[in-house]
Amino acid sequence: MRAREMAEPFPVVDLDTDALQAAAAMAKRNLPGIVVRGEDGKPHTVIPGSQVLNFVIPQYVQDDPHLARVYDEEASDAFARKLASVTVRDVLPKKKDLEDLPVVDGDATGIEVAAVMARMHSPIAVVCEGEGGEILGVIRMGKLMSHLLPEHGQEG
Amino acid sequence: MRAREMAEPFPVVDLDTDALQAAAAMAKRNLPGIVVRGEDGKPHTVIPGSQVLNFVIPQYVQDDPHLARVYDEEASDAFARKLASVTVRDVLPKKKDLEDLPVVDGDATGIEVAAVMARMHSPIAVVCEGEGGEILGVIRMGKLMSHLLPEHGQEG
Repeated sequence: MRAREMAEPFPVVDLDTDALQAAAAMAKRNLPGIVVRGEDGKPHTVIPGSQVLNFVIPQYVQDDPHLARVYDEEASDAFARKLASVTVRDVLPKKKDLEDLPVVDGDATGIEVAAVMARMHSPIAVVCEGEGGEILGVIRMGKLMSHLLPEHGQEG
Repeated sequence: MRAREMAEPFPVVDLDTDALQAAAAMAKRNLPGIVVRGEDGKPHTVIPGSQVLNFVIPQYVQDDPHLARVYDEEASDAFARKLASVTVRDVLPKKKDLEDLPVVDGDATGIEVAAVMARMHSPIAVVCEGEGGEILGVIRMGKLMSHLLPEHGQEG
Protein backbone atom coordinates (compact mmCIF):
# COMPACT_ATOMS: atom_id res chain seq x y z
CA MET A 1 0.00 0.00 0.00
CA ARG A 2 1.30 3.43 -0.96
CA ALA A 3 1.00 6.69 0.94
CA ARG A 4 -1.80 7.94 -1.31
CA GLU A 5 -3.99 4.99 -0.24
CA MET A 6 -3.19 5.52 3.43
CA ALA A 7 -3.94 9.26 3.34
CA GLU A 8 -7.15 10.51 4.86
CA PRO A 9 -8.73 13.77 3.74
CA PHE A 10 -8.58 16.69 6.12
CA PRO A 11 -9.86 20.24 6.18
CA VAL A 12 -7.36 22.58 4.56
CA VAL A 13 -6.69 25.87 6.27
CA ASP A 14 -4.84 28.83 4.80
CA LEU A 15 -2.71 31.43 6.49
CA ASP A 16 -5.66 33.80 6.44
CA THR A 17 -8.23 31.33 7.81
CA ASP A 18 -9.44 32.48 11.19
CA ALA A 19 -7.93 30.53 14.06
CA LEU A 20 -11.35 29.60 15.46
CA GLN A 21 -12.16 27.73 12.25
CA ALA A 22 -8.85 25.87 12.43
CA ALA A 23 -9.44 24.87 16.06
CA ALA A 24 -13.01 23.83 15.24
CA ALA A 25 -11.71 21.55 12.47
CA MET A 26 -9.41 19.80 14.97
CA ALA A 27 -12.34 19.46 17.37
CA LYS A 28 -14.75 18.05 14.77
CA ARG A 29 -12.39 15.38 13.50
CA ASN A 30 -10.42 14.74 16.67
CA LEU A 31 -7.14 15.71 15.03
CA PRO A 32 -4.01 16.51 17.06
CA GLY A 33 -3.10 19.29 14.65
CA ILE A 34 -3.85 20.74 11.27
CA VAL A 35 -2.01 21.33 8.02
CA VAL A 36 -1.65 24.90 6.80
CA ARG A 37 -1.46 25.54 3.05
CA GLY A 38 0.82 28.33 1.89
CA GLU A 39 0.11 30.86 -0.80
CA ASP A 40 1.80 28.58 -3.37
CA GLY A 41 -0.69 25.77 -2.63
CA LYS A 42 1.99 23.61 -1.01
CA PRO A 43 1.95 22.66 2.66
CA HIS A 44 3.35 25.54 4.65
CA THR A 45 3.49 23.97 8.08
CA VAL A 46 1.67 21.75 10.56
CA ILE A 47 0.23 23.51 13.60
CA PRO A 48 -0.12 21.22 16.59
CA GLY A 49 -3.18 21.93 18.72
CA SER A 50 -0.87 22.74 21.61
CA GLN A 51 0.39 25.74 19.62
CA VAL A 52 -3.15 27.08 19.40
CA LEU A 53 -3.62 26.57 23.13
CA ASN A 54 -0.27 28.20 23.77
CA PHE A 55 -1.44 31.29 21.90
CA VAL A 56 -4.70 31.56 23.79
CA ILE A 57 -3.83 30.55 27.34
CA PRO A 58 -1.94 33.36 29.08
CA GLN A 59 1.59 32.52 30.17
CA TYR A 60 0.87 33.06 33.88
CA VAL A 61 -1.95 30.51 33.68
CA GLN A 62 0.33 28.01 31.95
CA ASP A 63 2.87 28.49 34.71
CA ASP A 64 0.26 27.87 37.41
CA PRO A 65 -2.61 25.79 36.01
CA HIS A 66 -4.49 26.03 39.31
CA LEU A 67 -5.16 29.66 38.51
CA ALA A 68 -7.20 28.39 35.56
CA ARG A 69 -9.71 26.77 37.87
CA VAL A 70 -10.68 30.13 39.30
CA TYR A 71 -11.92 31.66 36.10
CA ASP A 72 -13.07 28.63 34.14
CA GLU A 73 -16.70 29.70 33.70
CA GLU A 74 -15.97 32.78 31.67
CA ALA A 75 -12.80 31.37 30.15
CA SER A 76 -14.40 29.18 27.50
CA ASP A 77 -16.21 32.16 26.02
CA ALA A 78 -13.03 34.20 26.09
CA PHE A 79 -11.20 31.31 24.40
CA ALA A 80 -13.55 31.24 21.40
CA ARG A 81 -13.64 35.05 21.16
CA LYS A 82 -9.87 35.32 21.15
CA LEU A 83 -9.54 32.67 18.41
CA ALA A 84 -12.21 34.34 16.27
CA SER A 85 -10.29 37.60 16.30
CA VAL A 86 -7.02 36.27 14.84
CA THR A 87 -5.86 34.31 11.79
CA VAL A 88 -3.81 31.14 11.50
CA ARG A 89 -0.84 33.33 10.55
CA ASP A 90 -1.04 35.06 13.94
CA VAL A 91 -1.03 31.77 15.84
CA LEU A 92 2.05 30.37 14.09
CA PRO A 93 5.37 30.62 15.87
CA LYS A 94 7.34 33.53 14.44
CA LYS A 95 10.29 31.37 13.53
CA LYS A 96 9.83 28.14 11.70
CA ASP A 97 11.98 25.80 9.75
CA LEU A 98 10.42 24.60 6.53
CA GLU A 99 12.91 21.75 6.42
CA ASP A 100 11.06 20.25 9.35
CA LEU A 101 7.85 19.46 7.48
CA PRO A 102 6.93 15.76 7.50
CA VAL A 103 5.96 15.54 3.83
CA VAL A 104 5.91 12.34 1.76
CA ASP A 105 5.19 11.63 -1.87
CA GLY A 106 2.03 9.74 -2.88
CA ASP A 107 4.23 6.86 -4.00
CA ALA A 108 5.98 6.50 -0.64
CA THR A 109 5.85 3.04 0.95
CA GLY A 110 4.87 2.35 4.55
CA ILE A 111 8.47 2.06 5.70
CA GLU A 112 9.33 5.29 3.90
CA VAL A 113 6.49 7.11 5.71
CA ALA A 114 7.69 5.57 8.98
CA ALA A 115 11.23 6.80 8.32
CA VAL A 116 10.02 10.38 7.83
CA MET A 117 7.80 10.34 10.94
CA ALA A 118 10.62 8.82 13.00
CA ARG A 119 13.15 11.42 11.87
CA MET A 120 10.79 14.36 12.42
CA HIS A 121 9.25 12.98 15.64
CA SER A 122 5.87 13.64 14.04
CA PRO A 123 2.51 11.96 14.75
CA ILE A 124 1.36 12.68 11.17
CA ALA A 125 2.76 12.86 7.65
CA VAL A 126 1.40 15.10 4.89
CA VAL A 127 0.99 13.36 1.52
CA CYS A 128 1.66 15.52 -1.54
CA GLU A 129 1.63 14.63 -5.19
CA GLY A 130 2.23 16.06 -8.64
CA GLU A 131 4.35 18.90 -9.89
CA GLY A 132 2.46 21.50 -7.90
CA GLY A 133 2.89 19.47 -4.71
CA GLU A 134 -0.87 19.29 -4.23
CA ILE A 135 -1.89 18.18 -0.73
CA LEU A 136 -3.69 14.82 -0.87
CA GLY A 137 -4.28 14.29 2.83
CA VAL A 138 -2.55 13.19 6.02
CA ILE A 139 -1.47 9.84 7.44
CA ARG A 140 -1.88 9.48 11.17
CA MET A 141 0.37 7.39 13.37
CA GLY A 142 -2.33 4.82 14.19
CA LYS A 143 -3.09 4.27 10.52
CA LEU A 144 0.59 3.79 9.73
CA MET A 145 1.02 1.31 12.58
CA SER A 146 -2.03 -0.61 11.30
CA HIS A 147 -0.40 -0.83 7.91
CA LEU A 148 2.95 -1.96 9.31
CA LEU A 149 1.29 -4.46 11.65
CA PRO A 150 -1.55 -5.82 9.49
CA GLU A 151 -2.48 -8.50 12.02
CA HIS A 152 -3.07 -5.81 14.62
CA GLY A 153 -5.09 -3.33 12.53
CA GLN A 154 -7.86 -0.97 13.49
CA GLU A 155 -11.10 -2.30 14.84
CA GLY A 156 -14.41 -1.39 13.25
CA MET B 1 -17.03 19.37 32.65
CA ARG B 2 -14.09 18.04 34.60
CA ALA B 3 -11.10 16.07 33.34
CA ARG B 4 -12.51 12.78 34.62
CA GLU B 5 -15.55 13.17 32.34
CA MET B 6 -13.40 14.06 29.34
CA ALA B 7 -11.00 11.15 29.83
CA GLU B 8 -11.26 8.19 27.49
CA PRO B 9 -10.04 4.76 28.54
CA PHE B 10 -6.90 3.46 26.93
CA PRO B 11 -4.90 0.26 27.03
CA VAL B 12 -2.33 0.41 29.82
CA VAL B 13 1.14 -0.84 29.06
CA ASP B 14 3.85 -1.56 31.57
CA LEU B 15 7.60 -1.28 31.25
CA ASP B 16 7.77 -5.03 30.67
CA THR B 17 4.99 -5.19 28.06
CA ASP B 18 6.41 -6.23 24.72
CA ALA B 19 6.78 -3.35 22.30
CA LEU B 20 4.71 -5.12 19.63
CA GLN B 21 1.70 -5.12 21.95
CA ALA B 22 2.17 -1.40 22.64
CA ALA B 23 2.39 -0.60 18.92
CA ALA B 24 -0.64 -2.80 18.22
CA ALA B 25 -2.66 -0.87 20.82
CA MET B 26 -1.83 2.41 19.05
CA ALA B 27 -2.82 0.82 15.73
CA LYS B 28 -6.12 -0.57 17.00
CA ARG B 29 -7.33 2.69 18.52
CA ASN B 30 -5.60 5.13 16.21
CA LEU B 31 -3.67 6.71 19.07
CA PRO B 32 -0.64 8.95 18.47
CA GLY B 33 1.11 7.49 21.51
CA ILE B 34 0.60 5.39 24.58
CA VAL B 35 0.87 5.85 28.32
CA VAL B 36 3.34 3.67 30.21
CA ARG B 37 2.59 2.77 33.82
CA GLY B 38 5.53 2.56 36.19
CA GLU B 39 6.10 -0.07 38.86
CA ASP B 40 4.36 2.21 41.40
CA GLY B 41 1.14 2.19 39.33
CA LYS B 42 1.53 5.87 38.43
CA PRO B 43 2.12 7.09 34.88
CA HIS B 44 5.78 6.68 34.07
CA THR B 45 5.88 8.38 30.70
CA VAL B 46 4.10 8.82 27.39
CA ILE B 47 5.74 7.17 24.40
CA PRO B 48 4.89 8.85 21.12
CA GLY B 49 4.52 6.45 18.21
CA SER B 50 7.43 8.21 16.52
CA GLN B 51 9.67 6.95 19.32
CA VAL B 52 8.67 3.37 18.51
CA LEU B 53 9.37 3.98 14.81
CA ASN B 54 12.67 5.61 15.72
CA PHE B 55 13.70 2.47 17.56
CA VAL B 56 12.80 0.14 14.72
CA ILE B 57 13.78 2.06 11.59
CA PRO B 58 17.57 2.03 11.16
CA GLN B 59 19.24 5.43 11.26
CA TYR B 60 20.57 5.17 7.70
CA VAL B 61 17.03 4.61 6.42
CA GLN B 62 15.76 7.62 8.37
CA ASP B 63 18.51 9.70 6.83
CA ASP B 64 17.57 8.58 3.31
CA PRO B 65 13.94 7.46 3.20
CA HIS B 66 14.27 6.45 -0.45
CA LEU B 67 16.38 3.54 0.70
CA ALA B 68 13.25 2.28 2.45
CA ARG B 69 11.48 1.80 -0.85
CA VAL B 70 14.00 -0.80 -1.92
CA TYR B 71 13.35 -3.23 0.85
CA ASP B 72 9.73 -2.53 1.72
CA GLU B 73 8.41 -6.02 0.98
CA GLU B 74 10.41 -7.75 3.65
CA ALA B 75 10.53 -4.72 5.94
CA SER B 76 7.03 -5.04 7.41
CA ASP B 77 7.78 -8.53 8.63
CA ALA B 78 11.09 -7.37 10.08
CA PHE B 79 9.28 -4.48 11.77
CA ALA B 80 6.89 -6.77 13.67
CA ARG B 81 9.65 -9.25 14.53
CA LYS B 82 11.90 -6.56 15.94
CA LEU B 83 9.08 -5.14 18.10
CA ALA B 84 8.14 -8.59 19.39
CA SER B 85 11.68 -9.17 20.62
CA VAL B 86 11.91 -6.13 22.91
CA THR B 87 9.96 -4.55 25.77
CA VAL B 88 8.56 -1.06 26.21
CA ARG B 89 11.51 -0.35 28.52
CA ASP B 90 13.92 -1.00 25.65
CA VAL B 91 12.11 1.41 23.34
CA LEU B 92 12.12 4.33 25.81
CA PRO B 93 14.77 6.99 25.40
CA LYS B 94 17.54 6.40 27.93
CA LYS B 95 17.20 9.83 29.45
CA LYS B 96 13.83 11.20 30.37
CA ASP B 97 12.53 13.96 32.52
CA LEU B 98 9.61 12.96 34.71
CA GLU B 99 8.76 16.62 35.21
CA ASP B 100 7.66 16.68 31.59
CA LEU B 101 4.66 14.41 32.02
CA PRO B 102 1.36 16.03 31.02
CA VAL B 103 -0.66 14.79 34.01
CA VAL B 104 -3.86 16.40 35.33
CA ASP B 105 -6.10 15.66 38.28
CA GLY B 106 -9.61 14.26 37.74
CA ASP B 107 -10.99 17.57 39.05
CA ALA B 108 -9.10 19.69 36.54
CA THR B 109 -11.23 22.04 34.43
CA GLY B 110 -10.98 22.37 30.65
CA ILE B 111 -8.84 25.49 30.82
CA GLU B 112 -6.57 23.79 33.36
CA VAL B 113 -6.09 20.82 31.01
CA ALA B 114 -5.43 23.27 28.16
CA ALA B 115 -2.81 25.07 30.23
CA VAL B 116 -0.93 21.81 30.88
CA MET B 117 -1.05 20.69 27.24
CA ALA B 118 0.06 24.16 26.08
CA ARG B 119 3.00 24.26 28.49
CA MET B 120 4.14 20.71 27.65
CA HIS B 121 3.40 21.00 23.90
CA SER B 122 1.51 17.73 24.28
CA PRO B 123 -1.34 16.35 22.14
CA ILE B 124 -2.71 14.40 25.12
CA ALA B 125 -3.07 14.73 28.90
CA VAL B 126 -3.09 11.81 31.32
CA VAL B 127 -5.84 11.99 33.95
CA CYS B 128 -4.94 10.61 37.38
CA GLU B 129 -6.91 10.50 40.56
CA GLY B 130 -6.73 9.49 44.19
CA GLU B 131 -3.86 9.07 46.60
CA GLY B 132 -2.25 6.34 44.56
CA GLY B 133 -2.42 8.51 41.43
CA GLU B 134 -4.43 5.85 39.60
CA ILE B 135 -4.58 6.39 35.84
CA LEU B 136 -8.17 7.12 34.73
CA GLY B 137 -7.54 7.66 31.04
CA VAL B 138 -6.30 10.20 28.55
CA ILE B 139 -7.74 13.38 27.03
CA ARG B 140 -6.91 13.96 23.40
CA MET B 141 -6.48 17.37 21.82
CA GLY B 142 -9.62 17.07 19.66
CA LYS B 143 -11.75 16.19 22.67
CA LEU B 144 -10.39 19.13 24.63
CA MET B 145 -11.02 21.51 21.72
CA SER B 146 -14.61 20.18 21.47
CA HIS B 147 -15.10 20.96 25.11
CA LEU B 148 -13.63 24.46 24.84
CA LEU B 149 -15.59 25.19 21.64
CA PRO B 150 -18.92 23.52 22.37
CA GLU B 151 -20.57 24.92 19.23
CA HIS B 152 -17.89 23.26 17.11
CA GLY B 153 -17.88 19.83 18.74
CA GLN B 154 -17.24 16.39 17.31
CA GLU B 155 -19.54 14.99 14.67
CA GLY B 156 -21.27 11.66 15.15
